[in-house]
Amino acid sequence: MDRRRCLEADLADPLAAARTHFALPEGLIYLDGNSLGALQPVVAARLRDVVEHEWGAGLIRSWNDAGWVELPRRIAGRLAPLLGADRTELAVTDSTSANLFKALAAARRLRPDRHVLLTDDANFPTDVYVAQGLATLTGDLEVRVVHTDEVASHLDAEVAVLTLTHVDYRTGRLHDPVDLTAAAHAVGAVTVWDLSHSTGALDVDLHRWDADLAVGCTYKYLNGGPGSPAYLYVAQRWHEEISTPVQGWFGHAQPFAFSLGYQPAPGAERFHDGTPPVLSMAALESALEVWEGIDRAQLAAKAAELTDRFIALVDERCDDTVEVVTPRDPTRRGAQVSLRHAHADALTQALIARGVIGDHRPPDLVRFGFAPLYVRHVDVCDAVEQLREVLATRAWDRPEHHARRTVT
Amino acid sequence: MDRRRCLEADLADPLAAARTHFALPEGLIYLDGNSLGALQPVVAARLRDVVEHEWGAGLIRSWNDAGWVELPRRIAGRLAPLLGADRTELAVTDSTSANLFKALAAARRLRPDRHVLLTDDANFPTDVYVAQGLATLTGDLEVRVVHTDEVASHLDAEVAVLTLTHVDYRTGRLHDPVDLTAAAHAVGAVTVWDLSHSTGALDVDLHRWDADLAVGCTYKYLNGGPGSPAYLYVAQRWHEEISTPVQGWFGHAQPFAFSLGYQPAPGAERFHDGTPPVLSMAALESALEVWEGIDRAQLAAKAAELTDRFIALVDERCDDTVEVVTPRDPTRRGAQVSLRHAHADALTQALIARGVIGDHRPPDLVRFGFAPLYVRHVDVCDAVEQLREVLATRAWDRPEHHARRTVT
Repeated sequence: MDRRRCLEADLADPLAAARTHFALPEGLIYLDGNSLGALQPVVAARLRDVVEHEWGAGLIRSWNDAGWVELPRRIAGRLAPLLGADRTELAVTDSTSANLFKALAAARRLRPDRHVLLTDDANFPTDVYVAQGLATLTGDLEVRVVHTDEVASHLDAEVAVLTLTHVDYRTGRLHDPVDLTAAAHAVGAVTVWDLSHSTGALDVDLHRWDADLAVGCTYKYLNGGPGSPAYLYVAQRWHEEISTPVQGWFGHAQPFAFSLGYQPAPGAERFHDGTPPVLSMAALESALEVWEGIDRAQLAAKAAELTDRFIALVDERCDDTVEVVTPRDPTRRGAQVSLRHAHADALTQALIARGVIGDHRPPDLVRFGFAPLYVRHVDVCDAVEQLREVLATRAWDRPEHHARRTVT
Repeated sequence: MDRRRCLEADLADPLAAARTHFALPEGLIYLDGNSLGALQPVVAARLRDVVEHEWGAGLIRSWNDAGWVELPRRIAGRLAPLLGADRTELAVTDSTSANLFKALAAARRLRPDRHVLLTDDANFPTDVYVAQGLATLTGDLEVRVVHTDEVASHLDAEVAVLTLTHVDYRTGRLHDPVDLTAAAHAVGAVTVWDLSHSTGALDVDLHRWDADLAVGCTYKYLNGGPGSPAYLYVAQRWHEEISTPVQGWFGHAQPFAFSLGYQPAPGAERFHDGTPPVLSMAALESALEVWEGIDRAQLAAKAAELTDRFIALVDERCDDTVEVVTPRDPTRRGAQVSLRHAHADALTQALIARGVIGDHRPPDLVRFGFAPLYVRHVDVCDAVEQLREVLATRAWDRPEHHARRTVT
């Protein structure tokens, strides 16, 4: 009965057609699109063309003739509607870590007389490392890492920058970006949001949030491919004043004048630095075609439905060795549900062995991501059935599921 | 007669077999491998496999199962012999600009009591921008840009870091890395070399040079593909003391422990930061296979022969509207010859229209690069014949060769 209701929900899904663009392996239930998005055959075809014709035959001429030099700008144009941003507010470049470094340094320079960078202990660890690395480099910044529930109460006139990840990568819990941005602005701080777990799954609306800066990756819900280039957002109101610490030629107003004097490019494009990775950029550009005409509110609605259904079915079918740690209020969570289990790593492996792919986050979480573009209601139903069986039979308790892996 | 001698030289070339690995378009004489290296079909095949099987079918599992997580380290192992370095001294990550930023910041912190960063006015402009950006960020560094002939005389006890590009991107002139490194060390300064125009074309030997840090790109003579990942070298003797300003999770000793405390990875790998761009990394790894067993001295010898021959033929055949600006002593130049011409841009375009691809550097240079792996002596001969004709007939003086281009 549950399964039939799921199939009916899929028939009624306004986003159902998007799944046809993806090449998901037969029989696999892929609930790890929050870690690495799936491949679209059009991306593979585009990359073949870029490699064999544009690089192989066109060689250096393709910077002009195939428009390689415009790739970051074209991608920014495709990303902008997914972020509630304008194209000129986006740089597409580097990794999320490198962009966060640049964004924090830039934000900090907008408030030169303040010396605190505030973040929380639920942030993605690399974001904290990056902040601490910047503080060590400049020597005039204190990184305050506070409990995730107490961010607002630590905002005061000492805070130069508030940086947070919108979706907690472990629990899936959301910070409220509107309230926290307003609270930061009320004390004169500048905000830097990490949207890696948000964009392409939720109704990210940077203009409505009144955001200052933001960064995010494109290899999760945006399906750009493993390690695809990241983005950096700077609100228009900062374009005159903002500066990047990594002044590279592709962020110069005239890179091919080869002048020794640095002149930043207009808008967010000054945050470009080195030569863009064309192969990865081309894959990303192609991967973003599928978003044309897709409404952010539809994404958020489907993410809420899928995660609601997953939680309800876990409650109904699974034994009490698992606990839902993700907020049950759908407006308080991302497109993800995390379960606590005493042997979370082995449980994850046992599910993968049965074709249900989630991932493990230490010490005791199994994460399931519900990419609204290609996860179906029936996948949710089937995944929970596999989970029920694995738990009921203790199938996770086999030696092969306890093997150590480099990446979890 | 010249052409027959060229064909004979190609038959005697110990590197001749390497060209068979490349897919150069029929009829094209490609003398821009110093800007973008050529494609090898094996790279295209590898990338298809990575995209369609490893990403498409393997999805997140490929981080372990396909060894994606080890890509930067495996590439470092292939690069090391080309640089006279050990694998553990190399990070493979980011762009050259971003790596230079990290290297300069790290080098500067090895000499905290000094406040001058010395470079020259023949450096690649982005290297100067990057240095200036770092100085603005930290506020305690002065960037001194001196005439390229006067570097040694500006080394004194104020200098924390000397940073230079080994090969002048315009003239092809070489700095002497052994003498300048020794001179820098004599005053207590740390060196950062940019090897973008060197590695894969010359006998780069970082151990012999006694180099401290170095960076370089892989998309020129290393043929990694447009915008392929760059590398960063740190000499073993600095491994205990060195730190990176961009502390990202892939440079952490245990990225997948997700600990909030930063612990650098051993050796140069701490300079990794964000998630590596797997598609670009896989292409690069594959592109480096061809170097197995190739001797750096052979590369340098062939580069000297090709450039010698080019200069001799230009002297012999071309009118005096062009002037060779590259040093005539082959030990003083890279694998490149630059000619000065009053209409260098149009001359470059006219040559490209005839299938001889070089590039233009403002204001008045035409550059020709001689990648020792795939440029033949007969290409040199044929290229100069085209050049002679274009000059003799003033074929550059047509409207279509004066069109403005974004990338030169």
